Formats: sequence, C-alpha cells, structure tokens
Amino acid sequence: MDLALVGIGKIARDQHVPSLDASPDWKLAATISRHGSVDGVEQFTSFEQFLDARQDIRVVSLCLPPVPRFDYAVQAIATGRHVMLEKPPGASVAECQKLLAMARAQGVALYATWHSREAAMVDAARDWLAGQKLRKLTVTWQEDVRRWHPGQDWIWEPGGLGVFDPGINALSIVTKLLPDALHLSAAELITPENRQCPIAAKLRFAHPHGADIRADFDWRKEGDQIWRIEAETDSGRMTLDAGGAQLSINGVPQQSDSAALSGEYPRLYARFAELVASGSCDVDLAPLRHVADAFMIGRREITAPFHE
Amino acid sequence: MDLALVGIGKIARDQHVPSLDASPDWKLAATISRHGSVDGVEQFTSFEQFLDARQDIRVVSLCLPPVPRFDYAVQAIATGRHVMLEKPPGASVAECQKLLAMARAQGVALYATWHSREAAMVDAARDWLAGQKLRKLTVTWQEDVRRWHPGQDWIWEPGGLGVFDPGINALSIVTKLLPDALHLSAAELITPENRQCPIAAKLRFAHPHGADIRADFDWRKEGDQIWRIEAETDSGRMTLDAGGAQLSINGVPQQSDSAALSGEYPRLYARFAELVASGSCDVDLAPLRHVADAFMIGRREITAPFHE
Repeated sequence: MDLALVGIGKIARDQHVPSLDASPDWKLAATISRHGSVDGVEQFTSFEQFLDARQDIRVVSLCLPPVPRFDYAVQAIATGRHVMLEKPPGASVAECQKLLAMARAQGVALYATWHSREAAMVDAARDWLAGQKLRKLTVTWQEDVRRWHPGQDWIWEPGGLGVFDPGINALSIVTKLLPDALHLSAAELITPENRQCPIAAKLRFAHPHGADIRADFDWRKEGDQIWRIEAETDSGRMTLDAGGAQLSINGVPQQSDSAALSGEYPRLYARFAELVASGSCDVDLAPLRHVADAFMIGRREITAPFHE
Repeated sequence: MDLALVGIGKIARDQHVPSLDASPDWKLAATISRHGSVDGVEQFTSFEQFLDARQDIRVVSLCLPPVPRFDYAVQAIATGRHVMLEKPPGASVAECQKLLAMARAQGVALYATWHSREAAMVDAARDWLAGQKLRKLTVTWQEDVRRWHPGQDWIWEPGGLGVFDPGINALSIVTKLLPDALHLSAAELITPENRQCPIAAKLRFAHPHGADIRADFDWRKEGDQIWRIEAETDSGRMTLDAGGAQLSINGVPQQSDSAALSGEYPRLYARFAELVASGSCDVDLAPLRHVADAFMIGRREITAPFHE
C-alpha cells in the first residue's frame, strides 16, 4: 500500500523511512515537509497540495511535533485518509479524543503509536509479571538532552512536554506491563528558570495492592544513559533495560523470540497495516493522561537555567 | 435514606446540610470530620470507625478537598457504599477513572457532581444554543480569592488547582452547553512566585466550526464579582450570568421554569437519589480533563507573590 510520510526530521530518517523500505506491506509514495525530503520519493511542501494532488494515497503517517500535528490529522481524517501518529499522539488528551471520534465517524484507521511498547523484551516482561504479586516497580529514565534533542526548541515550549517526551516512553511501557493499575499520587517537576517544561521529574504512583511505584526522569545525565524498569514481586526480580530491549529475571538474561527482534518501528508499521485492513482504531491515551495528571498535580521546583 | 456526610467545612454547612434537611429523599444520619459537626447528628472523627459502626448507612457524600478525598472514596466503595463526590471529582483524571471502575465492579452508585451545571438557567441556555451556529463564546470568571477561599491553603498546593477551582465550574457549564465540541488549544497560567497554582488563567479552545472560544479566570477581582458566559450565534446573543442563575437572550431577561429554581445542591441530591435507586454511575470527567490539559500545555508566567 502507498503511504505518505509527513515531517521529514530526525525520527523520520532514523526510523520511519528504513522501516517502510524494509516492509512487505508499505511503499513510501510521497513526503510532505517544509525542509526535508527522501531521495527518489515525490516531495510536497504543502499538505493541502498533497491531499489534493494524490487522492490515490489513502494512508498518511504523521511525524511532526505534537502541537502542529493536530491540524494535519484533522485534514487527513476529514479527507478519508487512514492516519498513524508518532508519540505522543497529541498535545492534549481532549484533542486526541476528538481525533478518535472523527476517525470512527469517518470509518478510517487511527493508530496512536507507542514505539517503546514494541521493544524486543516488553512482551516477555509483561508475561512474566502477569499473575505475580508486585511489591515494587522503579523506572529510571536518564539521558542527555543535548545528545538526543539537539536544536529541538519546541520540546521546551508549552506542549513539548520537556523530559516527559522521553519519559512518556517509559510510561507507555509501564501502562502495558500494568494495564489500568496505576494512578499518579504525587510528582515533582524540576524546571529550568528559562524554560517552560521540566528537565527532570520524580513521580509516585498509587497501586491497588500498595506496591511502591516510582519513576525518575532526568535529562541531565551525562556518560552512560539509563532507560530501565526494575520490578520486585513475591517470586523474584526483573530488570527491563535499554528501553525495553534487554530483560533479566533474577539476574539471568532472557532471550527474546525471533518475532520480537524485528524492531520497534517495523512492528508499528506491521500493526498499522492490520488496522488499515480492518479500518479500526488503536488509541490508548493512558500514558498521556498520566503526563497531564503530573503537570496538574506536580509540585514545581525551579532550577538553574538550561542553555544548549 | 440515611446518608453520612464527610468533611464538615464551609461548603458542607452552606450547601449540603441545608439541602439534605430540605430533601424528601435523604436524612443526614452521621457526620465524619476531624473538627466539624452538625447539631443533633451522630458525629465520628474517624472514617474507619464510622464504616465499621454504622454498616446500616449505605450512602456517603464526600465534601473533602480533592487530594485526601480519594482514599475515603476507595474505602467507601470497597465496603459497598454509594458515593457522591464534590467537585472536582479527584486530584487526577486517572484516579477518577479508577474510582469509576471500582464502583462499577461493586455495583454501587458513583456521582461526580458539578453543582454549577444545576444552576437555574443552564438548561435553558443549552436548549437555546442547540442547533444554532456558534460564532463566539467568552467565559469571564473573576472573583476575589480572599473573599471566597479564606484560609484554604490547600487550594494553592499541588492538586488544589488554584483559580481552576472556581474556573472548573465554568468549564462544567461550557461542557454541558457544548458537549464534546471543544479542546484546549492554548493557555496562559499566571502564578504568584510564592505559590504552586495559578491565580489567573487565560484559555483558548478550538471548535470544530472555527468559533472563537475563550475563557478568562482571575482571582484578583475586587468589587463586583463576575461569573459570566456570553455567546454569539448566527441568530443572536445570549448572556448566562451570576454563575448560571441568570440568562438573557438578545438583551431580554429569561424566566426559569419552577423546577430549575429548586437550587443547585437540592438538584444534585435529587439526582443522586435516582442514581442510588438504580445503582448507576454519573461520572463526566470532561471538565477535569480540560484543566489537566491546561496545566500540560499552558505557558507559565510568574507574577507578584500572593499573601492572604
């Protein structure tokens, strides 16, 4: 199936384009971007122009930042296109719910992707946790913003989410491991005095059986980067590391099955092909709701200014 | 039916107790409060003690601030009590969803009340707007925090919502007037440098047909207080004033029908009696979702410190 990719930036080049090239389901038939393009693929700078000129392309994937993405999604759905959304699916929970209602009314597929949920060992971690009594779960998500988000000023602006941009990846895994179990009970949001969004956050969640659930997001980590979820249950310990790519249980590294090894974005695009075939929607807003709750109930602390 | 009231503060004395006294459905049979009590009504200071001692009382109404309220609601639902929640229904969207899931599993009634929706002229305003093409809707909700929230330090703390504590009343009306139509597109949150929550906020909403929707919440208003929603449509103008108690259409004041005149809290308790009779839930989280979205995408401005 032909697909158009909107927003040709770092994530599009690093992940979307290679995954589409390798996919048996998809052909990248057009790009829409003010600045970027992909060699050998028809290029548009105006989305309206694309929608009008290529009515044969019924599927679009949106890799824009969350704030501008909504208007593109509305236009795409209104013209009957199936739509895939990068994470987070929108700037606000209400706008995502509106897109979902629109997609259902139009009968098109809408897929709010959470790429970290497709990391190689997340399913195995979820299967191991299922049915066990959880005592403690600790998320440590610490990376260097200068390394991973160079020049991305939008990420510090209202709606850019700051350290929750990577942190929501952790929350997308946690809400897959423990569906519907958690709600935020307290948060600290550490924000540079010259920025709108936090550079670090500490979260505590309430769990129905009293398990101790915490998350520590920090964008000031130099050297080794940490994307780790550790859990203690009544029968042992697990560490899901490297953003979900590695799993050890009671200290023993686990092997993934071969299907899980295909990679995060190839798995997203395979799932999207299924959704388009059936015209159905997969929009789980739980990670974004937790982030909105953190902004609403979080205690703000101001810290030193951040300059890139 | 016997009912227990938890949290005997200003709102309980001003609204809940008189409404219960006047109700044909309810008898105030117990109070639970660390400090307050009601003459002639059995008084508990511990909720656990109440739950244990008065197993005959199957209905509780919670008038605590939102942050501590959750634990009371969980205990009440877990022991099979029907529960009514003051607004806002919780500190976070996720905790409210958890209460709703618990209530459904237990088969008890859960009612997330929005008292401003029951103001005398709100239904008439909704009926007038229905089917018209909206051009503009402006919310002005300006009051003096010193007059309405004396000594309420919790309202400035994380989860207390600041000026959104009254502002959510306006949003509860707007989401009744225009169900599912809006999502927040931008917000400014003006916050005193010595407080966690905003003292003023300006909101803009996106509307599917491009109507201009704004809200202006301010806690620094002295003199005349303003709780007003104005709308312009293709066929005229309406002003819903005094928090929903007064309506004029094209400058002509409207009369309410007699049922609407019974008062906000009497209407809430009459509705709650219906919900308890059928064991059903009425939990609309749209106003709280808009507030969470405002905290997430709002631009923060720091203003002069606030001292009471």
